[in-house]
Amino acid sequence: MGGDHGVSVTVPAALQALQDQPALKLILVGRRDIIEAELQRLHAAEGERLVIRHASEVVNMDDPPAQALRSKKDSSMRVAINLVKEGGAQAAVSAGNTGALMATARFVLKTLPGIDRPAIVTTLPTTRDHVHVLDLGANVDCTPEQLLQFAVMGSILVSAVEGKPKPRVGLLNIGEEDIKGNEAVKKANEMLRASSLNYCGFVEGDDIYTGDMDVIVCDGFVGNVMLKTSEGLAHMIAHYMKQEFRRNLLTRLAALIALPVLHAFKKRVDPRRYNGATLVGLNGTVIKSHGGADKMAFGHAILEALAEVRNNVPERIGRELAALDTAASA
Amino acid sequence: MGGDHGVSVTVPAALQALQDQPALKLILVGRRDIIEAELQRLHAAEGERLVIRHASEVVNMDDPPAQALRSKKDSSMRVAINLVKEGGAQAAVSAGNTGALMATARFVLKTLPGIDRPAIVTTLPTTRDHVHVLDLGANVDCTPEQLLQFAVMGSILVSAVEGKPKPRVGLLNIGEEDIKGNEAVKKANEMLRASSLNYCGFVEGDDIYTGDMDVIVCDGFVGNVMLKTSEGLAHMIAHYMKQEFRRNLLTRLAALIALPVLHAFKKRVDPRRYNGATLVGLNGTVIKSHGGADKMAFGHAILEALAEVRNNVPERIGRELAALDTAASA
Repeated sequence: MGGDHGVSVTVPAALQALQDQPALKLILVGRRDIIEAELQRLHAAEGERLVIRHASEVVNMDDPPAQALRSKKDSSMRVAINLVKEGGAQAAVSAGNTGALMATARFVLKTLPGIDRPAIVTTLPTTRDHVHVLDLGANVDCTPEQLLQFAVMGSILVSAVEGKPKPRVGLLNIGEEDIKGNEAVKKANEMLRASSLNYCGFVEGDDIYTGDMDVIVCDGFVGNVMLKTSEGLAHMIAHYMKQEFRRNLLTRLAALIALPVLHAFKKRVDPRRYNGATLVGLNGTVIKSHGGADKMAFGHAILEALAEVRNNVPERIGRELAALDTAASA
Repeated sequence: MGGDHGVSVTVPAALQALQDQPALKLILVGRRDIIEAELQRLHAAEGERLVIRHASEVVNMDDPPAQALRSKKDSSMRVAINLVKEGGAQAAVSAGNTGALMATARFVLKTLPGIDRPAIVTTLPTTRDHVHVLDLGANVDCTPEQLLQFAVMGSILVSAVEGKPKPRVGLLNIGEEDIKGNEAVKKANEMLRASSLNYCGFVEGDDIYTGDMDVIVCDGFVGNVMLKTSEGLAHMIAHYMKQEFRRNLLTRLAALIALPVLHAFKKRVDPRRYNGATLVGLNGTVIKSHGGADKMAFGHAILEALAEVRNNVPERIGRELAALDTAASA
């Protein structure tokens, strides 16, 4: 029940999701009094498909991950992930502290055999459709082996959730020629070429939004900068556009007339529709919502969890990794 | 006279710049017959302020840098940089192969004392004003010392060209807390804190476009991905907007009415106004234009060269570095 807005976002989003998805059951983990008050405010209550699980502690957005893990054993985050571990829930969704969520999920659920560290993967819109990008910040310095693991995980995620049999995988680099890039990327390129993935070679930053790839792989430092730069640029463009349309009476009139078009445009690039990053590589499904998510955005994170549970993503990744491992040692 | 469009862009841009800047003199370096034909087409000719310098070879956009350097000693790129070296020109502007330009400039002009490798720096628009970002791809793996050198060079460039006495410098990272980031960034953070620069600490990707910093420092891999991702995203947004305004007769009418606003908006984020990246850290001024630059964009690259020559940028960077070095060894 974390994030920047707490229950005022997560509870309404949960109620909406229950209404939209008849097969869904939700456990709201957090301080019972606060959750109950919010449910009451919304004229809702616990029931067969909506259960409250009390957790007395809260991981703050600025708590260091190690400290959250060590000293807050009854945090909503920890309790929710414990539920996944024990089979009481099939997935955990959180809008809380990313570092703490990653550390807790890794400690409680453990990584799949063959995976060094989990990665964070999300979808981004493209000119044609959308693309999955990983890692987005869980791993700052990556080995070529890790980049290969990211590619495998991303590829399986896309084929499981979207039914694409052979997702196109690109490796993010700063030039398309084989000679460019750092050592990790060059080595990963060779390993990917030798793999059974549908590897399409190097891509550059401007290829992310074209839709030519289904999965783009990079280290977490680059991925995080890429993602946040995109957020910042989109924000600046929106700011400039608003400013120009508000300049004077005439431009305001033009805005009024163009409103339906501007709304349709906004809807297509609305980042809320892409909310819900997966912590991939774990024995279980954990979805990270943007901390600043609103009701609609948080609802999308719940839907992402549902889709991954329905498609057995962690099990499929585990199976494919085992097959890869057998093939490699054969 | 390179780039994707050759003389059809560079020659008209040169003529326009001469018209706008009475103190400017230009030497057009390249195949004399081709340049003369283009001048003739535009009813122009050589004169006191416009001279042709013949160069028989052309560096292609896909020539490996080392090969261009070794085997094309009479390329327009090489001849132009030789002119800077010998004092025949005060700056070189090229829309050609970036790697070859960097290798040639470094070989011919040499780096300033105290600089390991030159960096590529450009300006990007922000919500408030603009920001200088470096490195954008010349250095894939950077030491903390190099990141510090980038900060020094960027800071001097901004204070020289824009008259800002104490430019605000940020170091690109994936979290604002001191504990995040890779080793090079953490060490560079300490070195920057100890420096005499107006260092403001870590910034994240979404801080690039806010205008809170004057200079943002990162390694060339991250910077290149950041820059190209921004290009790709802007392209996608423009594509979506066009699509929505072209949907039907009503939206086309709305577009017509909103046209002046859309033009004003487009002008503000027009990347052509930011064309012209500086190869900083050399004994001389070399400006790299985007390969796909049009006349207006290439003109901006010429103006950037003019501004840096007028403000003695390489000399000032050299002086400040010498002062830093003396301070460090004192």
